[in-house]
Amino acid sequence: DVSFDPKEHQHLRYNPLRDSWVLVSAHRMKRPWAGQVEKPPEEHIPRFDPRNPLCPGNTRANGEINPNYDSTFVFENDFPALQPDAPDPGSDQHPLFQSKAARGVCKVMCFHPWSDITLPFMKTPEVVKVIDKWAELVEELGSTYPWVQIFENKGAVMGCSNPHPHCQVWASSFLPNEPALSDRCQRDYHQKHGEPLLLQYAKQEAEKKERVVVQSSHWLAVVPYWATWPYQTLLLPRRHVLRINDLTAEEREDLAAIMKRLLTKYDNLFEVSFPYSMGWHGAPTGPHLKEDNSHWQLHAHYYPPLLRSATVKKFMVGYEMLAQEQRDLTPEQAAEKLRNLPEEHYKSREE
Amino acid sequence: DVSFDPKEHQHLRYNPLRDSWVLVSAHRMKRPWAGQVEKPPEEHIPRFDPRNPLCPGNTRANGEINPNYDSTFVFENDFPALQPDAPDPGSDQHPLFQSKAARGVCKVMCFHPWSDITLPFMKTPEVVKVIDKWAELVEELGSTYPWVQIFENKGAVMGCSNPHPHCQVWASSFLPNEPALSDRCQRDYHQKHGEPLLLQYAKQEAEKKERVVVQSSHWLAVVPYWATWPYQTLLLPRRHVLRINDLTAEEREDLAAIMKRLLTKYDNLFEVSFPYSMGWHGAPTGPHLKEDNSHWQLHAHYYPPLLRSATVKKFMVGYEMLAQEQRDLTPEQAAEKLRNLPEEHYKSREE
Ligand SMILES: O=P(O)(O)O[C@H]1O[C@H](CO)[C@@H](O)[C@H](O)[C@H]1O
Ligand SMILES: O=P(O)(O)O[C@H]1O[C@H](CO)[C@@H](O)[C@H](O)[C@H]1O
Repeated sequence: DVSFDPKEHQHLRYNPLRDSWVLVSAHRMKRPWAGQVEKPPEEHIPRFDPRNPLCPGNTRANGEINPNYDSTFVFENDFPALQPDAPDPGSDQHPLFQSKAARGVCKVMCFHPWSDITLPFMKTPEVVKVIDKWAELVEELGSTYPWVQIFENKGAVMGCSNPHPHCQVWASSFLPNEPALSDRCQRDYHQKHGEPLLLQYAKQEAEKKERVVVQSSHWLAVVPYWATWPYQTLLLPRRHVLRINDLTAEEREDLAAIMKRLLTKYDNLFEVSFPYSMGWHGAPTGPHLKEDNSHWQLHAHYYPPLLRSATVKKFMVGYEMLAQEQRDLTPEQAAEKLRNLPEEHYKSREE
Repeated sequence: DVSFDPKEHQHLRYNPLRDSWVLVSAHRMKRPWAGQVEKPPEEHIPRFDPRNPLCPGNTRANGEINPNYDSTFVFENDFPALQPDAPDPGSDQHPLFQSKAARGVCKVMCFHPWSDITLPFMKTPEVVKVIDKWAELVEELGSTYPWVQIFENKGAVMGCSNPHPHCQVWASSFLPNEPALSDRCQRDYHQKHGEPLLLQYAKQEAEKKERVVVQSSHWLAVVPYWATWPYQTLLLPRRHVLRINDLTAEEREDLAAIMKRLLTKYDNLFEVSFPYSMGWHGAPTGPHLKEDNSHWQLHAHYYPPLLRSATVKKFMVGYEMLAQEQRDLTPEQAAEKLRNLPEEHYKSREE
């Protein structure tokens, strides 16, 4: 009898945050790739571009002029998917044709006045300002909206249409699918095991070590046991924290430092400004502020698409869309690769 | 008070097959696009390429030689994500570190001996042969495996690494996430309403007409009320049919014809060989053959990524990955566009 080796033998792993399974087929990395190759990101971005609507002092689509900001800068998305005042589609609906009102706001947040800088190159206090602004927006928008989604699409391959370092913050009158699922999963786990899911998980991972990428006194970044994207990571505090605005000044400074370390490793992996979508999940807000949310633990998800090189991504298509997500290397292999990369950025070494 | 207009006012729609919601923000189509542009597909594909492992008579990666096939041709995937004999990862697991055995087979199926042909250009009897082979594989693999996933990735943008017309068939020892969810939703609906979900749905859509793209005496193709991809369609029989191998000869012939019509419209939309992932969902097989599966209705999903043109796709990133899927035009707008396109292929008209 052959004994089980996760690197050689396909198997399923359970994602307790989404109540679903991922197919791990690590032997698939051996297949050759003759498919689509992505364009590597633009290397020479000007620090200031007079036509870029995100730069300080420039005029945006709606005619507004950006201030000459020198830190973060937040404004309303000029083409928002959510507006505060959409009318209700009305009730009296067939069960197969159900709709509901959706209201909200969409904000854009620039991280820095320069277009040619990314988070790993920003100074720690500059990244702290980004975190402080995130916390402020969750506090402000979360006072009424049940969900405030902070997310960053980085790189053209992730649908980002502007190289200027920025993220988006969409607040909605509804709890979206993903946080609704995560809320249910964390609640069920807490009820069954008497401790928040992600607190138990962080403790286990800190002990096991094999999936840890970087850690600090307050934070832990791992390739989760159930990762679907090749180099996906989960960033979470060691202390029980419900929302980003609950973080102490010390925890924010430590978060800025670990984000810089994680993102430097990402860039070093294929020596490219690493594309990803990332975002924060914390306990729901608005009407949920009055409820018991002790099953929640704040965390960030990083979903980077690259698989083999700076130009070959993992395609989540066909089988993944219609049946189940499938990955081509084990989370432990991915974590080991990232862990062993230098913490100095390859671009600093080049200079 | 403004009255609700789905084209102007964002709202949520319920997907009864996945028990989830989609955010419809049709006014977003107005925003300009300055982001990534895809490479249009290769226009000049040789009919026969001696280096292409899918062509008749060529040698594959494992040294096997393809027969000189003149219709469909099925072989085992040379780099399968599922193999029949993987050992069990073993039990005694922490609830946060759960794994399970996964076994199966992965087959590749060529549609035609020519590399430069696609389904809309194949003759109806040739497409019927593809359908017959699908039915045969579901019959054969489904005699033991609980799930047989037929899927086609078409176009480099959908991760397809070979231009030769082909699909894949992956059979697994487990019911994957997506069919498991769809099974639960259809079962619940059937219990509550006394009729299969998709049978009721097809009747409603045939009456309402606004989301119908093409129809025939046995089949109906609609942009579903809850579509997430811009031009997503759902293809389903009008009769209650559990699995593809239950289709009569007449239904298969009619299916071949409607597939050709639908795919011709897709190609005509942006005058490009239209990329997509598609796949069939029917009642589970293997051990489930003995169960009552009358809540199921056979159907195919088409998930095409293009949004604005032959080179601009919809990016399902950031908000979509972390919160909820969002679409930029209404399903009714998409259906109307597709419905009004000619049924003659733009390439035939050019000649
Ligand atoms: O097996 P292929 O066609 O090379 O691979 C393609 O389809 C598979 C199944 O959808 C995906 O897992 C791969 O990411 C994709 O590139
Ligand atoms: O608003 P942006 O950055 O132009 O658009 C990008 O992010 C959005 C939110 O994830 C997506 O809906 C779009 O498909 C994507 O292109």
